[in-house]
Amino acid sequence: MKFQLSATDSQSKARAGVLHTGHGEIHTPIFMPVGTAGSVKAVHQRELEQDINAEIILGNTYHLYLRPGIELLEKAGGLHHFNGWKRPILTDSGGYQVYSLGANRKITEEGVIFKSHIDGSKHTFTPENVMDIQRTIGADIIMAFDECTPYPCEYKYAKDSMKMTHRWLERCVKRVNETEPKYGYEQALFPIVQGSVYKDLREQSAEFIASQQQWGNAIGGLSVGEPHEDMYAMTSLVCGILPADKPRYLMGVGTPENILECIALGIDMFDCVMPTRNARNGMLFTSQGIINIRNEKWKDDLTPIDTAVGGYASTFYSKAYLRHLVINKEILGAQIASIHNLTFYLWLVREARKQIMEGTFAEWKNKMVKTVSQRL
Amino acid sequence: MKFQLSATDSQSKARAGVLHTGHGEIHTPIFMPVGTAGSVKAVHQRELEQDINAEIILGNTYHLYLRPGIELLEKAGGLHHFNGWKRPILTDSGGYQVYSLGANRKITEEGVIFKSHIDGSKHTFTPENVMDIQRTIGADIIMAFDECTPYPCEYKYAKDSMKMTHRWLERCVKRVNETEPKYGYEQALFPIVQGSVYKDLREQSAEFIASQQQWGNAIGGLSVGEPHEDMYAMTSLVCGILPADKPRYLMGVGTPENILECIALGIDMFDCVMPTRNARNGMLFTSQGIINIRNEKWKDDLTPIDTAVGGYASTFYSKAYLRHLVINKEILGAQIASIHNLTFYLWLVREARKQIMEGTFAEWKNKMVKTVSQRL
Repeated sequence: MKFQLSATDSQSKARAGVLHTGHGEIHTPIFMPVGTAGSVKAVHQRELEQDINAEIILGNTYHLYLRPGIELLEKAGGLHHFNGWKRPILTDSGGYQVYSLGANRKITEEGVIFKSHIDGSKHTFTPENVMDIQRTIGADIIMAFDECTPYPCEYKYAKDSMKMTHRWLERCVKRVNETEPKYGYEQALFPIVQGSVYKDLREQSAEFIASQQQWGNAIGGLSVGEPHEDMYAMTSLVCGILPADKPRYLMGVGTPENILECIALGIDMFDCVMPTRNARNGMLFTSQGIINIRNEKWKDDLTPIDTAVGGYASTFYSKAYLRHLVINKEILGAQIASIHNLTFYLWLVREARKQIMEGTFAEWKNKMVKTVSQRL
Repeated sequence: MKFQLSATDSQSKARAGVLHTGHGEIHTPIFMPVGTAGSVKAVHQRELEQDINAEIILGNTYHLYLRPGIELLEKAGGLHHFNGWKRPILTDSGGYQVYSLGANRKITEEGVIFKSHIDGSKHTFTPENVMDIQRTIGADIIMAFDECTPYPCEYKYAKDSMKMTHRWLERCVKRVNETEPKYGYEQALFPIVQGSVYKDLREQSAEFIASQQQWGNAIGGLSVGEPHEDMYAMTSLVCGILPADKPRYLMGVGTPENILECIALGIDMFDCVMPTRNARNGMLFTSQGIINIRNEKWKDDLTPIDTAVGGYASTFYSKAYLRHLVINKEILGAQIASIHNLTFYLWLVREARKQIMEGTFAEWKNKMVKTVSQRL
């Protein structure tokens, strides 16, 4: 895997780059649609590729491990063959989902024992087996096994947890170095910076993560309920420490505004369920602002959803038709809104990239942040 | 509107034809996907056109009248403009849905008073206003307002109801003759034969309906729970009376087997929610037989859903992946299964047409009926 920086912004820390993987190029900054169980909800693979122009999607190790299970994924030749998505895939480590299980999991130095949310069956994730599972899923980018601390989080807990995450990282690196990809293409490990909202911990963690000299680096434990200022402050701090010649991935972020602000801080990669989850509730992100399509004001609006972002869903269907579908709980409503929101997110990062390349990012970003976050 | 017979089978009553409408040609025998509220559930308009090769879809007057309402449909310039489907549309008369409301409707000579299933509001459908509503929806084929009798149905009720349906038909014809299409293309009225499972009533009704000399004719009140033999007997009887030079539409039918048998009896047009409704429950109709995709036996089956019928959903995705999606209640599962089932239904009627044109229909049908109705 190779990361080339194509341009850096002179008035911010924004960068444009190209990440080369065994399944093709990723142009950064990039947004990665979330395909939890091997499907980006309500969206066909063909639509992801041709309409949304997604360059990489995310899969969740926890969900894929439980269903369809790694045995079937191995038989299929990996997730790419199982779901037919031919471009790059990133898998998370399962850590985030496991911690969300609350009472149904127990964390020890060895790893995490948890109960399946499906049938209550007992399972163990360790840094080692999570690397093996991600080898079998066959993602192009695999994430280190970490503990994602909640917000708020006491200093002592955050510090101890961070140290364990670092020890786990060493075990992940060792395991990855001792094993081979299963399907003939490279799998790049990304370690994850933790440390909650504590500056000294984030600094320590970023330095430790950088010292591991992996293919890319991620920032975890943000976008878990903390104020946006904290998220930006931590992201800025960590970006200043992580090496500039490697991609930086901010996990689980966020709104269009968050994404633009964090691009300005030096982030290259994002993922979030927001565009698809909110779509299913009738919330549309557009180049003009945020729309609640259930609102009466869109009832008679026969204009396309968003011509600026282009693509099938956003230009073929009208707001009034989409509203009609959403109000009637028609599945097609969720489909159209999901395609549109993802098309918009990918349009947004592509626009950001263009502005970075042209040296006009900072000014554009300041304007765009206001536009995309206003309620229409 | 013009109907040309291209071929008639020598060993059955099967016919192949072409129906010319203001929105293009329909090659018969044809199956019409049901788009209740202006959307064929879980299927994009582009998929209907390009993947499924649907030539005409159906809309339900009752649902469209309640939501989005005829005011908005008129503002949009009709349903074609509202949902973006550019090929022909047929609307039912709303009668069937209204009768399904049970206690929430009252039938009188004037029409039907009913309560909306959405908000309990009170509405009236009469032969006249149902014609007006269908004018506003803008369907290419509009259906007469009839009473669809339940099964079983007492002889006296069936007879009285049929006579009222005939009186209503005269009012429908009068209204259609007195009014003009709203959007510049022809709207063809199809009257509906009733009479439950009583031979003499079906004969009387078919003769009365034929005497009205409309563009095409429909058979209603079947596929409501009666034995298949009754459905076939009534269909055969009625087809013998309805004019051969006009299309015959058997409403609400049916399984692939039903469709093949009724093509052999002289039916040209079909509609049914079965391919989409059953898809959402994981039942797949294929060229090899019927699949319950939730069944354990498909768990590891990495072969395409059905290569014989072709098309994106049926050839791109594997049975194992589709099963995984359906088991996980992923929306994409409903999408893939719906596209596949409709692709199969359209493939089936296209194959039937080819066999009729080549003079090999009867033999092919007898084999195919066994294949498509077996459980895999």
